[in-house]
Amino acid sequence: MLMNGEQYIESLRKLNTRVYMFGEKIDNWVDHPMIRPSINCVAATYELAHDPQYEDLMTAKSNLTGEKVNRFTHLHQNTDDLRKKVKMQRLLGQKTASCFQRCVGMDAFNAIYSTTFEIDEKYGTSYHENFVNYLKWVQEEDYIVDGAMTDPKGDRGLPPHKQKDPDLFLRIVERREDGIVVRGAKAHQTGSINSHEHIIMPTMAMGEADKDYAVSFACPSDVEGLYMIYGRQSCDTRKLEENADVDLGNKKFGGQEALVVFDDVFIPNDKIFLCGEYEFAGMLVERFAGYHRQSYGGCKVGVGDVIIGGAALAAEYNGAQKASHIKDKLIEMTHLNETIFCCGIACSAEGYPTKAGNYQIDLLLANVCKQNVTRFPYEIVRLGEDITGGLMVTLPSDADFKSDTVVGKGGETIGQVCNKYYAASESVSTENRQRILRFMENICLGSSAVGYRTESMHGAGSPQAQRIMIARQGNIEGKKQLAKVIAGIKE
Amino acid sequence: MLMNGEQYIESLRKLNTRVYMFGEKIDNWVDHPMIRPSINCVAATYELAHDPQYEDLMTAKSNLTGEKVNRFTHLHQNTDDLRKKVKMQRLLGQKTASCFQRCVGMDAFNAIYSTTFEIDEKYGTSYHENFVNYLKWVQEEDYIVDGAMTDPKGDRGLPPHKQKDPDLFLRIVERREDGIVVRGAKAHQTGSINSHEHIIMPTMAMGEADKDYAVSFACPSDVEGLYMIYGRQSCDTRKLEENADVDLGNKKFGGQEALVVFDDVFIPNDKIFLCGEYEFAGMLVERFAGYHRQSYGGCKVGVGDVIIGGAALAAEYNGAQKASHIKDKLIEMTHLNETIFCCGIACSAEGYPTKAGNYQIDLLLANVCKQNVTRFPYEIVRLGEDITGGLMVTLPSDADFKSDTVVGKGGETIGQVCNKYYAASESVSTENRQRILRFMENICLGSSAVGYRTESMHGAGSPQAQRIMIARQGNIEGKKQLAKVIAGIKE
Amino acid sequence: MLMNGEQYIESLRKLNTRVYMFGEKIDNWVDHPMIRPSINCVAATYELAHDPQYEDLMTAKSNLTGEKVNRFTHLHQNTDDLRKKVKMQRLLGQKTASCFQRCVGMDAFNAIYSTTFEIDEKYGTSYHENFVNYLKWVQEEDYIVDGAMTDPKGDRGLPPHKQKDPDLFLRIVERREDGIVVRGAKAHQTGSINSHEHIIMPTMAMGEADKDYAVSFACPSDVEGLYMIYGRQSCDTRKLEENADVDLGNKKFGGQEALVVFDDVFIPNDKIFLCGEYEFAGMLVERFAGYHRQSYGGCKVGVGDVIIGGAALAAEYNGAQKASHIKDKLIEMTHLNETIFCCGIACSAEGYPTKAGNYQIDLLLANVCKQNVTRFPYEIVRLGEDITGGLMVTLPSDADFKSDTVVGKGGETIGQVCNKYYAASESVSTENRQRILRFMENICLGSSAVGYRTESMHGAGSPQAQRIMIARQGNIEGKKQLAKVIAGIKE
Amino acid sequence: MLMNGEQYIESLRKLNTRVYMFGEKIDNWVDHPMIRPSINCVAATYELAHDPQYEDLMTAKSNLTGEKVNRFTHLHQNTDDLRKKVKMQRLLGQKTASCFQRCVGMDAFNAIYSTTFEIDEKYGTSYHENFVNYLKWVQEEDYIVDGAMTDPKGDRGLPPHKQKDPDLFLRIVERREDGIVVRGAKAHQTGSINSHEHIIMPTMAMGEADKDYAVSFACPSDVEGLYMIYGRQSCDTRKLEENADVDLGNKKFGGQEALVVFDDVFIPNDKIFLCGEYEFAGMLVERFAGYHRQSYGGCKVGVGDVIIGGAALAAEYNGAQKASHIKDKLIEMTHLNETIFCCGIACSAEGYPTKAGNYQIDLLLANVCKQNVTRFPYEIVRLGEDITGGLMVTLPSDADFKSDTVVGKGGETIGQVCNKYYAASESVSTENRQRILRFMENICLGSSAVGYRTESMHGAGSPQAQRIMIARQGNIEGKKQLAKVIAGIKE
Repeated sequence: MLMNGEQYIESLRKLNTRVYMFGEKIDNWVDHPMIRPSINCVAATYELAHDPQYEDLMTAKSNLTGEKVNRFTHLHQNTDDLRKKVKMQRLLGQKTASCFQRCVGMDAFNAIYSTTFEIDEKYGTSYHENFVNYLKWVQEEDYIVDGAMTDPKGDRGLPPHKQKDPDLFLRIVERREDGIVVRGAKAHQTGSINSHEHIIMPTMAMGEADKDYAVSFACPSDVEGLYMIYGRQSCDTRKLEENADVDLGNKKFGGQEALVVFDDVFIPNDKIFLCGEYEFAGMLVERFAGYHRQSYGGCKVGVGDVIIGGAALAAEYNGAQKASHIKDKLIEMTHLNETIFCCGIACSAEGYPTKAGNYQIDLLLANVCKQNVTRFPYEIVRLGEDITGGLMVTLPSDADFKSDTVVGKGGETIGQVCNKYYAASESVSTENRQRILRFMENICLGSSAVGYRTESMHGAGSPQAQRIMIARQGNIEGKKQLAKVIAGIKE
Repeated sequence: MLMNGEQYIESLRKLNTRVYMFGEKIDNWVDHPMIRPSINCVAATYELAHDPQYEDLMTAKSNLTGEKVNRFTHLHQNTDDLRKKVKMQRLLGQKTASCFQRCVGMDAFNAIYSTTFEIDEKYGTSYHENFVNYLKWVQEEDYIVDGAMTDPKGDRGLPPHKQKDPDLFLRIVERREDGIVVRGAKAHQTGSINSHEHIIMPTMAMGEADKDYAVSFACPSDVEGLYMIYGRQSCDTRKLEENADVDLGNKKFGGQEALVVFDDVFIPNDKIFLCGEYEFAGMLVERFAGYHRQSYGGCKVGVGDVIIGGAALAAEYNGAQKASHIKDKLIEMTHLNETIFCCGIACSAEGYPTKAGNYQIDLLLANVCKQNVTRFPYEIVRLGEDITGGLMVTLPSDADFKSDTVVGKGGETIGQVCNKYYAASESVSTENRQRILRFMENICLGSSAVGYRTESMHGAGSPQAQRIMIARQGNIEGKKQLAKVIAGIKE
Repeated sequence: MLMNGEQYIESLRKLNTRVYMFGEKIDNWVDHPMIRPSINCVAATYELAHDPQYEDLMTAKSNLTGEKVNRFTHLHQNTDDLRKKVKMQRLLGQKTASCFQRCVGMDAFNAIYSTTFEIDEKYGTSYHENFVNYLKWVQEEDYIVDGAMTDPKGDRGLPPHKQKDPDLFLRIVERREDGIVVRGAKAHQTGSINSHEHIIMPTMAMGEADKDYAVSFACPSDVEGLYMIYGRQSCDTRKLEENADVDLGNKKFGGQEALVVFDDVFIPNDKIFLCGEYEFAGMLVERFAGYHRQSYGGCKVGVGDVIIGGAALAAEYNGAQKASHIKDKLIEMTHLNETIFCCGIACSAEGYPTKAGNYQIDLLLANVCKQNVTRFPYEIVRLGEDITGGLMVTLPSDADFKSDTVVGKGGETIGQVCNKYYAASESVSTENRQRILRFMENICLGSSAVGYRTESMHGAGSPQAQRIMIARQGNIEGKKQLAKVIAGIKE
Repeated sequence: MLMNGEQYIESLRKLNTRVYMFGEKIDNWVDHPMIRPSINCVAATYELAHDPQYEDLMTAKSNLTGEKVNRFTHLHQNTDDLRKKVKMQRLLGQKTASCFQRCVGMDAFNAIYSTTFEIDEKYGTSYHENFVNYLKWVQEEDYIVDGAMTDPKGDRGLPPHKQKDPDLFLRIVERREDGIVVRGAKAHQTGSINSHEHIIMPTMAMGEADKDYAVSFACPSDVEGLYMIYGRQSCDTRKLEENADVDLGNKKFGGQEALVVFDDVFIPNDKIFLCGEYEFAGMLVERFAGYHRQSYGGCKVGVGDVIIGGAALAAEYNGAQKASHIKDKLIEMTHLNETIFCCGIACSAEGYPTKAGNYQIDLLLANVCKQNVTRFPYEIVRLGEDITGGLMVTLPSDADFKSDTVVGKGGETIGQVCNKYYAASESVSTENRQRILRFMENICLGSSAVGYRTESMHGAGSPQAQRIMIARQGNIEGKKQLAKVIAGIKE
């Protein structure tokens, strides 16, 4: 059954998820003004699945059940599915101008599906069956699942088992007949609070000594022993202001990150997908990272579309839209944004089937994709700030624009003075000008900058992680041979 | 008399400056937590003038009085003065990691000094004498003066006299025997609230029809009819939080901008420096802009130094300082930062005397300087975000780190859990790690990003303004001749 | 029948193509050392079609005849065909490190096929049938056809009919019962000399006044009245040196360009594809340019592969291959090269069927592709020069390395001295070092730099041409709407 | 006595310098068409010294003799001298669009002067006196001296004494009462052939085991045992073509590089400046490299000026000079070029006196300068190729333009056809169009590209060499302290 946005939000209320913020427990977190915008983003992934014009992108036919499912729970069956995934993400980026959080689960599903197949093939385990059963249920319930990978890591120079505190990477602390007990945490978890379920993966390739850290499993977000501590974002508390609207720039949508703590959580056997087979940790990480680096070739492009539109509007409202340098900067922003999209599409179009049957992206091109995402959004934002003008950071508060306090000799109020001096082109109201300036502030250096910039940098792996993969996948030896032939070098 | 920081702050209390924020009047604005950090920056320009190790940079011998004055009130007497100006600004950038606001006044002094000399030469007016008397008094009192240039501008496609509302550029509304009455506003005024005085300049070159807009004068910040509306900044209200410290990243220093409104303000004759001689408006703007574009070759470099240091510390605290890609990124940041510095120094070293005797910078090189400032700080910040890691935008609040609320099965508090999972290299406390992460957040996308990024883009003129000057100053015709000679083209 | 390389070269000998160079007629141009390398490139397009491992890329089943044809004569039937086209081009770039010249014909075929269909649909003409018959014959004979578009253009500010000399754009000078007579020239024609046939297209969108210039047709390369004047290239005459080998860097392959002059050439009716229907000139140009901008996402990537390999070899031969900065630069070269490839693949994967049934690429993405090609190869070459070292431009001639002239006190010859002082890593001969240095010289600033750099800039349209298309295709209005919704702007 | 250009050329004829090229000895090398352009460049350094308008830049008063000397033989006495040096280099770049070769000597003089002073101070040697006497004579004779540093280096991973062939770094093979005998070679020697004298320096910092390699001395260019093997350049033999003129792009000026071999050359004691004091090798290298990295902030800027002019002319001749994107690209070229100049000026203005009394540049800023030179000229050339158009690489030879061979039906010659179809704007002759296109070809990928591009990359040290120095000079620890204070970190 495909939930709609409202049903999704209601479904969250049934969970007993433990959320802490500013040192205290948040009870009604579903309606908390700092959290709700991120819930609205997830809701959009449900809502758009019911819109006929987006049905082809937003839904798919499950290979497990034959039923129509939300594409976010789908196993990619061909390169068309992979391309549609990217376009669905672009669509959602356009509709939310934020991170909509449901991709990590989808990317985890696809990576675990194929990896468990290969583990079972080697060890005769039943992880794949466990996972297939789990995913059927998720598809049926139309759940959002947080795919959690990044451990706190402690000292970056040391492997898990050499850390002073052994919990700095999530690990198995007890193995029972009926399951395992795990302890540790996952950091930077986008959307964890808004997810029904969590699916956990190891954070990197591991050796035998790190066996207890090679673990993957699923659990409900409100399982006993699990809780979350909310992360701060630039301008986060602006959402708490009275009548918060104009100054937010993006009132409805936003992102979130949290630390997810596993305080000796019990995981029953049928929810375990990896448990000590350390040599498969690397494969799982590489496949998940590959999918997730593809994802950025969709979602950030969608957000980029909104920024380009916002900058164009700001120029128009300033009366500067005909200047040739403005037009050229908008072209450059478009060019960079579409270059990222090309990478997202290309690694999809060049995808190939795994042994398990679902489709994997082209690893080299997906890493190239993400590497560009660590660069171009910054330049897009820089050009956006250029076009928009300095007013985006010096404009008085909306409270000033609405204030009745008298300041002028002729009895003018603060509101009147603001409206007088911030008028621009006649055809646009100062409120609309405020709104577009605040949107650009929000995305360039406000709360959405967290998602559009820093997440573009570090999400799905920091830049150097992609460079290592590019080096590995780039086939330098083959290229040397090409050069030898051309240069007439015989050996 | 050179004031120290404390004396400066006390001197502000004596002013009746009218400041509005969030729709209301702020009475004790000197101690307001959102304003005070910007006052502390100005105070640093007073305080460091008393530090013997910085005396040579921070003070100079006045050519008007022969007395030692704060360099911020000095008329540059040679290229050494120009270079020292830049180094003084770098020093203050290093000490505040913010905009310290006192440069606009200094740049205005030097531009008005030479321009009034040339107006008087043509028209037999006494603007130069007016200004010299005024500046002597400013030097003596050691005042900070806001140099205000940018009008609201309304529709960018229209000149002042064609705007629907004639007040969208500041103008003379009445000419009396004893002076003039002015109306209008100046936008984006950095440091206006913290200044004892204001000195007003026109915003662009003007024609005869804009005669009433060609006006320059000085007045106290609390003159009758003048008031200010405070601008919002990213994360501004974080400064209002209880026990605000760690989460601020830069507790002591910060920037500010305001709209300064002139509600029919009377200016006596002896404070007028331009009054209708419209053909000198362009000269005044060009000279002020030239100095101010030089200024960015100092102040932003100083802030850049702190960012490089912050990124290096973050890497060290993460245990990643030995990675070759980290080292290389720090080199790149340094390279870009010093390239800006080179431009600041070069336009100073190539300065030349004006007719009035003070020194002007090289106009082409100063514009090249500022143009680089619209690019490199963005790349420095991008690399800073890369090195620092995603934690700078996902870290829980300091309230979490200090919370006693129990969350763990073993009775662990939120504070203990945060300290456990955000521990990194053993030699560093989590609080210090928080501090450096918050500093990087603050400068990359928090309140200081306003000063380091957007102000670098638009302060002293947006990028296109510099490109127009580079085209004008670049002597393309001379370069064509060089090419003709080499290519053997005779005409 | 698919020719092989040798058969192709023999087929050229049967043509009476008129070629002029250095002011004189070249009789045996097939064996001319400056021309032959470019013929060898074309021969590779024939030769590889017989190699079983490349059959899938190099050949296709004709939709016109059902026969197996060289893909260079194929009409793309789906997006797989479009992607294979790009990969075939990458392959040939890898094998020749040059422009292999046969793409313009292929791109012309596909553009004319769909455009003539739509002209006939409107006017009831029989251009499409003419073209289908022509292409069947080309496929059968396995001919290479030069697709010629660019006119000399004279004064860029004037349309064809306003030029002082009406021949500066190719035009119809006579209309007969049995055909037309054309006059004019096509400039920068890559591979014209090596082609069996020429297919001519107009160079831009046209209005009614330019009706006589709106003409497209095919003719043999040795048709009466047609001749070619060979263009100079950097280092062209190095190919004429005695025993030319090592110093060439790429002995076997190279590029060429020529001016193709139409000195009142008669074209029979059945070879005409456009004749005055001026409003279709723009469609033809846009479609051809679209395909050709896609092409650069394949061929230049292949050449880039060889350059990356060459730089890696140079580093190895210098003993510097383990330096982290060398490795990082090779990663960057790979990243940039694959980004171009992503664009080539993406505009293919997003292709769509035309009315005529063959597949067109995505126009926006193809323009984005080419725009990146005007940038990244320059950076790849810059990094290549960095890695390779200055020796690539200071090495003595191979004649020195082979010289027996005695220079040393101990009777050492020039050759011995060169071998002594240019020895590097023990495992590599100085000749191999020479070879790789010369290859890098050739591609960075020698004759192949023409193809890899300047052609990347201007081939398939100069950068500004793509920017105009990006602006047109970028849907700024739609993006503004997205921003309005997010920012809460209602109109 | 200051020689003029003609006297300089005549003075070369008196030398018995041994030059080899293409495997043979060149007897009259002064008039050899491949060598003469580089001699003409050096002659310009003599000729301009007699031009009153350049006297202040081109000459200086010797601190050794009080006489007026060519600035190329001068010891810098203050920061004004350092800035004038840079401006003199820019001037010569503008006049030759080439490397004028005389800087290495000047930079060697200044580095050796200060280093020998400090060696003598430590060891009581008389190297400084030796050098002062030598330089007096050079100033008096107005000689050009090649400052030679770069050894062949063999395996880059090994120090001099560990190389398989001990001669791969130049070394002392015999120590006699009256002097030393040296053996080895110096590679990439720009201008060695055109120099009266050679001054040799070690190539890097050395340890005790490399003592015999720590040697510096002077000798005449035609000393017994010394000979040179000429290096190849892109398009070098185009200079040998009959009536070579238009196709050269720059007929009069050009560069050169050679391998200089020391075949057991005897050096008398009074010409020795370092002989085994290995710990000073590093100081000498660092100081020389510092000056030479400053130099690039002048000479390449001058060449850049000509390229900007050439691109502007090409646009004008094409009729495209009013397009906004053309203007913007010329601005960008100017901006980048002046940024380099800023670095050259800044490291000069921030110079300081050495113990010996002459002035040293600021080391950090000089390295920043050169690092930018390894980047911006490539972008300047890329933009130049963009503006100029593809014709710069497809234009027929000048022999075609001048050919009387008949090709047309109406009896038109090749020359007439070329002139017809390559006509552009009416106001410009096709010959002038050819000339500017050939100039751009020459500088972008012809023989002058060697000097403007590859030499910008590797001359005065490859990019990584500057990065190492930037890391060393960048004071990261100090910057960390700044960040700690701001972030409130106490330790």
